[in-house]
Amino acid sequence: MITSQEAYQIIQQYTFPKQNEKVALLSSKGRILAESITADRDFPPFNRVAMDGIAFAFEGINPAAILVEQIQFAGETQKQLQDTHACIEIMTGAILPLGCDTVVRYEDILVEEIEGKKVAKITIPFEEITRGQNVHRQGSDKIAGQTLLEAGIRISPAEIAVMASVGKQEVQVVASPKVAVISTGDELVDISIKPESHQIRMSNSYMLAAALQTWNIEAQLFHLTDDPEVLMEKLTQILEEHDVILLSGGVSAGKKDYVPEILAQLGVKKCFHKVAQKPGKPFWFGVKDIEHSESTKLVFALPGNPVSTFLCFCKYALPVIAQQKPRVEQVSLAKEVFFKPALTYFAPAQVYFENGKMLAIPFEGSGSADFANLTNCDGFVELSSEKSHFEIGEIVNFVRFR
Amino acid sequence: MITSQEAYQIIQQYTFPKQNEKVALLSSKGRILAESITADRDFPPFNRVAMDGIAFAFEGINPAAILVEQIQFAGETQKQLQDTHACIEIMTGAILPLGCDTVVRYEDILVEEIEGKKVAKITIPFEEITRGQNVHRQGSDKIAGQTLLEAGIRISPAEIAVMASVGKQEVQVVASPKVAVISTGDELVDISIKPESHQIRMSNSYMLAAALQTWNIEAQLFHLTDDPEVLMEKLTQILEEHDVILLSGGVSAGKKDYVPEILAQLGVKKCFHKVAQKPGKPFWFGVKDIEHSESTKLVFALPGNPVSTFLCFCKYALPVIAQQKPRVEQVSLAKEVFFKPALTYFAPAQVYFENGKMLAIPFEGSGSADFANLTNCDGFVELSSEKSHFEIGEIVNFVRFR
Repeated sequence: MITSQEAYQIIQQYTFPKQNEKVALLSSKGRILAESITADRDFPPFNRVAMDGIAFAFEGINPAAILVEQIQFAGETQKQLQDTHACIEIMTGAILPLGCDTVVRYEDILVEEIEGKKVAKITIPFEEITRGQNVHRQGSDKIAGQTLLEAGIRISPAEIAVMASVGKQEVQVVASPKVAVISTGDELVDISIKPESHQIRMSNSYMLAAALQTWNIEAQLFHLTDDPEVLMEKLTQILEEHDVILLSGGVSAGKKDYVPEILAQLGVKKCFHKVAQKPGKPFWFGVKDIEHSESTKLVFALPGNPVSTFLCFCKYALPVIAQQKPRVEQVSLAKEVFFKPALTYFAPAQVYFENGKMLAIPFEGSGSADFANLTNCDGFVELSSEKSHFEIGEIVNFVRFR
Repeated sequence: MITSQEAYQIIQQYTFPKQNEKVALLSSKGRILAESITADRDFPPFNRVAMDGIAFAFEGINPAAILVEQIQFAGETQKQLQDTHACIEIMTGAILPLGCDTVVRYEDILVEEIEGKKVAKITIPFEEITRGQNVHRQGSDKIAGQTLLEAGIRISPAEIAVMASVGKQEVQVVASPKVAVISTGDELVDISIKPESHQIRMSNSYMLAAALQTWNIEAQLFHLTDDPEVLMEKLTQILEEHDVILLSGGVSAGKKDYVPEILAQLGVKKCFHKVAQKPGKPFWFGVKDIEHSESTKLVFALPGNPVSTFLCFCKYALPVIAQQKPRVEQVSLAKEVFFKPALTYFAPAQVYFENGKMLAIPFEGSGSADFANLTNCDGFVELSSEKSHFEIGEIVNFVRFR
């Protein structure tokens, strides 16, 4: 049986076929940028006034009496100072008028009407004013042609703002994989059906579909009955139409667990079956080669108990599907844990902050079939297979799901 | 000028009108549950077989030779053991046959054909078998009628699974507020237009709309020119049709900053203007009463520089709009910071984990107008206005935006 680390490494060797697509700017949130974004102009594109007040030429100005020639509003074409000792009223966001280099805000001046003319007087000591103040110089943040965003980054609201500022109405992003979520098990019925006493409603597919939504991935849901012919026909089609397949259930030793055999017949080769971990020991992973491509189709057969399904999904499948290296978080255990088996133990846990540390309370609960283990927790603490006693304060990795 | 804490407290006193709505199960992800969810059956709903193998009555069984009567598959109606010393083959997920109480997995038995009959033999010491093993007892996780989820919680994939398991095809959730995002400033042009040399493209609206998407909130975007008549007409209509208004720009001392005055005329009363913080000092907040309601319409006028806009949005507006108490995270400073003014300083920062601590590298960058401060960071460290020197290792709050 391979270790959790080995399983993780094996999966990382494969990738589904990556394609790019163009989407509207606001639809690119959460996606991976597939082009680099460069500044089409300087940032700011002009000497931008940063305060409401007056603009003038610093050299030789008389702070006691400065004639106000006119007003330069934001959005107006650039005006020109006529008299080098005069000033122009200016508004935040406006282009600095030609002939001016310095801005003093309204709070620091007094404007009076003298002989029908507007005259400004600076009311603070002139030594406090520096040449060029309150002007956001053209190109001081970025210059035209400079790279603003590199291809390969994850797009968040900040990157959307950057792309808006250079006029990207459409953005090239990496296409999401086509994902099929398949539940198997004849005891399962859809949530729209009232179950008989020996049946239960399927819930894993909905959980996985909801988790994929976070990454803007629309999964197609299937339920397949334990019938070899149906399985063969449906799996053939699903494999053709999807890049990644998430199966839940159907990979144990049962008499009707036909899935692994049928996958093999369909050219999906098993990379591993069973991982030394709890929960999720029966986890199965395989790939199908694609002609003339280095990519493969990925098949994750997740154990059917909800906590096992979710752990295997979050720890192994999601990093590949979302093309996101998992954020490695570390927590201090707030409660000791004893766990004897030589398995990596992923215990659901609640986290909170105290004195700058993130603490985790492992919630051992009532086993891998009980949802409550997930609804009260934020993620899983990852406890090494090489120890059986984990003390309070011990630092361990954390796989976040909330 | 009020402090950042005071501003936060004032905003918390108001709430937009809350309504409930019914959405399809998968559309409820990320929303707030507005009903409580109870178990319609026991969990599990029957004594559920947890292993593939054989089931029998523990009392008086002969482990050396157990007649196999038949097979009970998952999804089949319950079968009955005929001979109390015999067994029934069972598959994971099946209902435990009547007359059986214990399950032994295939790995621990040997099945032989003896005189045309299938006979199982237990291959491990019988002392290792306990009565009731490998059976997930009916109601052991939850009993019918028990509350599974309380109203008011945020719905994540785990909660989706719980609701699927009780057959909720539609869920009552709190409706999202109707949000308008308004940019003002005559220097701004839409991203579809090539700007003149004195113009810049609007980016804040796109940034805010993208940030709201994370919470499944579809914002309506508006751009208003600095014309009092247009502003009056448009703001009247926008106020009527929305619960929350996010304005960016237009609330400083400029000659064309008509917005505060017009809002006052429209019955929006100012709660505060200016907060002792950097960035985002000119932040303005007001509310408009709603007849026969304790709720109000909320108007956030965010300063126009992108970093200021985003800080004020994340710190003050988002917790109200998303109805989400901000997750209080704490970080250790990985770099010292000097900041003299008596303002709360929100510095963009990148975080990483080391020895179980989350460390933050503040990125002071080139001011509140530069996007780069956001694209390289994960959030803002919050540095108290009461100090001017923040040492390496100091623990401070962190406002995450990524």
